[in-house]
Amino acid sequence: MQTHRPLPRLIFGSGAGTASRELPEEVAVALSFNGSTQAVMMASPSDLVDFAYGFALTEGIAKPKEIQSVEVVETPLGLDVQIWLEAQAEARLAKRRRTMAGPVGCGLCGIDSLEEATRVMQPVPKTSFRMAPSAIMAAIAALPAAQPLHDTTRAVHAAGYFSDKLLAVREDVGRHNALDKLCGHLIRNPHPTGAIILTSRVSIDMVQKVAALGAPMLIAVSAPTAHAVHLADQAGITLIALARPDRFEAYTHTDRISQETAHVA
Amino acid sequence: MQTHRPLPRLIFGSGAGTASRELPEEVAVALSFNGSTQAVMMASPSDLVDFAYGFALTEGIAKPKEIQSVEVVETPLGLDVQIWLEAQAEARLAKRRRTMAGPVGCGLCGIDSLEEATRVMQPVPKTSFRMAPSAIMAAIAALPAAQPLHDTTRAVHAAGYFSDKLLAVREDVGRHNALDKLCGHLIRNPHPTGAIILTSRVSIDMVQKVAALGAPMLIAVSAPTAHAVHLADQAGITLIALARPDRFEAYTHTDRISQETAHVA
Repeated sequence: MQTHRPLPRLIFGSGAGTASRELPEEVAVALSFNGSTQAVMMASPSDLVDFAYGFALTEGIAKPKEIQSVEVVETPLGLDVQIWLEAQAEARLAKRRRTMAGPVGCGLCGIDSLEEATRVMQPVPKTSFRMAPSAIMAAIAALPAAQPLHDTTRAVHAAGYFSDKLLAVREDVGRHNALDKLCGHLIRNPHPTGAIILTSRVSIDMVQKVAALGAPMLIAVSAPTAHAVHLADQAGITLIALARPDRFEAYTHTDRISQETAHVA
Repeated sequence: MQTHRPLPRLIFGSGAGTASRELPEEVAVALSFNGSTQAVMMASPSDLVDFAYGFALTEGIAKPKEIQSVEVVETPLGLDVQIWLEAQAEARLAKRRRTMAGPVGCGLCGIDSLEEATRVMQPVPKTSFRMAPSAIMAAIAALPAAQPLHDTTRAVHAAGYFSDKLLAVREDVGRHNALDKLCGHLIRNPHPTGAIILTSRVSIDMVQKVAALGAPMLIAVSAPTAHAVHLADQAGITLIALARPDRFEAYTHTDRISQETAHVA
C-alpha cells in the first residue's frame, strides 16, 4: 500500500498557481488480538508488523515472546492487523476486557480511569549508557537524512534510535505510531542500549512508551509537558528536548550526559 | 488549576547554562457521561466546560441541548468532567455502550471498527460564506497574538474561529482538544458562519470534528493527509493548508475563495 500520493492544489499568494503536492496517506489500521479489535488507529500504511509488536508492548497488552503470529489483512475500509497471542496472554487480555465491559473508556487506548492514565512506570534498567553533548547534537543532525516519507511530504513524524550512530528510523502520520513502530523494530532485533529520538513534542504517553521499552534516554526536537518531565524523572529516563544540531536542553537525569566533552560553561 | 509552570533545565551548546522554562501542564481529564467514563484525555486544564460540550458534539455522543449540566471535579489524579444528559441521550449512549461491550476498541475515542473510523460525514449546510485570499491570510496573521499559553510555553496548539475578524481561540497541549474546546465555545454562543483555523496538521479526525460542527471552511498552518482531503471534499468543506500570512494552498471546494480579490495568476 502506498504511503503517499500526489493531490492537486491551488496556490494563492507568493508562488501562486496550480500544482500538485505529495500528501501522506492516512489509513485506518485495526489492531486485533486473537480476533477482537483492541484499537483502531489512523496510521501510515508501512512497517505494520513492527507496529503490532510495539503497540502490544508499549500499551501493556503482550510481551514480544507472547506473540505467536501477526498477519496484515487489507480490507476496503483499511488494514486489519491480526495479532495472535499464546494462551496465557489471551487469558490476561480477556480479563482486562471483562473489567472494561462496564463503563467503557478509551482516551489513552482503552484505558478507562484517571489512575490508569497517569500510571507510574517501572524505572528503566540501570545502565552505564552515556552520551556526550556532541553525540546528542550529532544524533539530531543525522535524523533528517533518514526520513524519506517526510522528505516527500513534509508532513509526517519520525522516531529514531541512536547508539554510536543512527541505527533505525520509523515514520508515521502519528507521532505515537512512529514510536510504536520503532519500538516494535527494536524488540524484534538485537540492539545495543541507546537513545530514542523524536521529531515531536513529548507528552506523557510518549514517556510511558519509552519506559515500557526500557530505553534510558529520550531526545526530542520539540518541548515536553511539565507532567512528561515529572514522569521521565520517576522512570529514570534522561529527557532532552528542544534539541537542535547546535543546542539542546536537558530536564532529567542529566548524569547520563557525559561531562568530559560537555560544552556547558 | 494552572496551565503552565516553570521547570529547571540545563542548556548545552549555544546559550549554555542553567535556566528555567515555562512548560505546559498536561492533566488527565476524564469525560464522564451520566456517571460513566467515556474517555480519558491528557489535556490543558482550561475551558473544560467548552471541552465537554465540544467533545460530546464532535464525537457524536450528545447534542448541546441534550446536556443538562456539566461539573468539573478536581481529584488528586486529574479532573473528572461530569456531564449529565437528558433521558433520550442517555438511552442512546447506553445502547452504544452495550454494542461496545463485546470486542472493546478505542483508537478514535471508543470507536471499535474500521467502518466507524472512516465514517462519511453529513455534508456541512449550504452557505453563501466566502473569504477573499487577503482575508484568509489576515486570519492566519491574526492567530499568534491570541495564543497566550503558546506565548508562554511555545508548546501548545490553538484552534481559532474567524468571520470578518478573529472571534475566539482555544489552546491545548492536544490539537484535538483545542478544536473540541473551540467547538464547545461556539455551540454555547451565537456566532456567524465562519472558518476554523488550526495551528496543526489536518488528519481525518480533525475534518470529522469540523464537519460535526458544520463549519464550511478549515484553514490549517500545516499539511493535510490525503485521506483528510478526500473527507473534506465529501463533507463539502473548503480545506486550506500550509497557510502563511503571505501564502496558502487550497485543496477542496475552492469556490468559497472569492475571486474578486484573488491573488492567483
